[in-house]
Amino acid sequence: MCATCGCDDHQHSHHSHKTVVDVEQDILHQNNLLAERNRGYFEAKQIFAVNLVSSPGSGKTSLLVKTLTDLKDFLEFSVIEGDQQTTCDADRIHATGTKVTQINTGKGCHLDAHMVLHALQGMKPKDNSTLFIENVGNLVCPAMFDLGEKERVVIISVTEGDDKPLKYPDMFHSSTLCIINKIDLLPYVDFNVEKVKANALKVNHQLEIIELSCTSGEGMDKWYNWLKTKVHVSDLSYSY
Amino acid sequence: MCATCGCDDHQHSHHSHKTVVDVEQDILHQNNLLAERNRGYFEAKQIFAVNLVSSPGSGKTSLLVKTLTDLKDFLEFSVIEGDQQTTCDADRIHATGTKVTQINTGKGCHLDAHMVLHALQGMKPKDNSTLFIENVGNLVCPAMFDLGEKERVVIISVTEGDDKPLKYPDMFHSSTLCIINKIDLLPYVDFNVEKVKANALKVNHQLEIIELSCTSGEGMDKWYNWLKTKVHVSDLSYSY
Repeated sequence: MCATCGCDDHQHSHHSHKTVVDVEQDILHQNNLLAERNRGYFEAKQIFAVNLVSSPGSGKTSLLVKTLTDLKDFLEFSVIEGDQQTTCDADRIHATGTKVTQINTGKGCHLDAHMVLHALQGMKPKDNSTLFIENVGNLVCPAMFDLGEKERVVIISVTEGDDKPLKYPDMFHSSTLCIINKIDLLPYVDFNVEKVKANALKVNHQLEIIELSCTSGEGMDKWYNWLKTKVHVSDLSYSY
Repeated sequence: MCATCGCDDHQHSHHSHKTVVDVEQDILHQNNLLAERNRGYFEAKQIFAVNLVSSPGSGKTSLLVKTLTDLKDFLEFSVIEGDQQTTCDADRIHATGTKVTQINTGKGCHLDAHMVLHALQGMKPKDNSTLFIENVGNLVCPAMFDLGEKERVVIISVTEGDDKPLKYPDMFHSSTLCIINKIDLLPYVDFNVEKVKANALKVNHQLEIIELSCTSGEGMDKWYNWLKTKVHVSDLSYSY
């Protein structure tokens, strides 16, 4: 029992519980409303929107740079970049010739649907295009915030350890595709690919999984095939 | 301008701004009070408390396991483990013979001072011991939550990219020591050690930096020396 307030709850803080819960629910509810609005926008313009989530440094931006470079003659792209600070990532995307908007969240730990709505209104992505939304590097908080995306892709690199899906289940549970990145480093790290796949499927048995390396290029064809198949379905219906 | 509410703020959501800001301030204020309480507890028992923060998979637990194994005959240790789910890390620590308490945060993205207070009351760490608090793997949110620790150690691995201190400045700004981990992988990744050090010092010019590898053992002596020096100062004064 807590000696400070006498409660039995290990996870609360010493403020008005009701107020905090109410505000949290309100934030998520308002986010969900704007996520639906974004979903309507994407459906109207037949935009294939992908929310990329991962820990910092798992290779989201490198994956995007390679993808944009390799596929820009086949597909129309635009990118929204989320970071606490800097325009490093937007600069890297811009160098590929792709339209990009950087969102700096400051103290914020995730993108929300409202930030994406603003970015859409500013950048006006083309009809029948693919929009990548690179979230803030954070394997926890972005899981709770629907951006209106069609697919959520969680990226894990082989240097991060094969226990991550169990330790951060919400993100793997809410994603549709898991990319296991940096497989060129497998000879140098203690990482069991079969174990991480089993762990990820334990959390989400419908999760698709692709192993690849942006550095060696191995497995990139599987990711490109996934992307092309998703984009070229006749009707990008956003009704789940 | 936001077409939904007419405001100019890209970062708010569509709920009562005042309520959210009030609740956030209240949460941080209450956390700070309990952090001071923890600080008093540590000072009274001359416990050297270290808060370990990083992205998921940068090697916090591996560093602890090696440290506890190598130094357990010289120093008295206890550990608090933070994760969203599982007792994987606590099990690894327990196997070294060290007293450990696991905190599962559920949806939560960070440890707070209240959780640590509860853990302290349960585990009762010994006088003149060293307490490692391994935070939830998250380079963003734990930066805002003082746990009452004496030192905050941010760990970054060389697979994560040398731009991370600039992109996630709060964590590097609030830490006292930065460990650059997995230097055994330097030959295989595009990571400039001098650049990451310069970026980290740009954010926090007082930051100490140690490069090491838990796998090869290179640089571990510097970390052990840092630890021994900090523990063996005659008076562990917690007045900053």
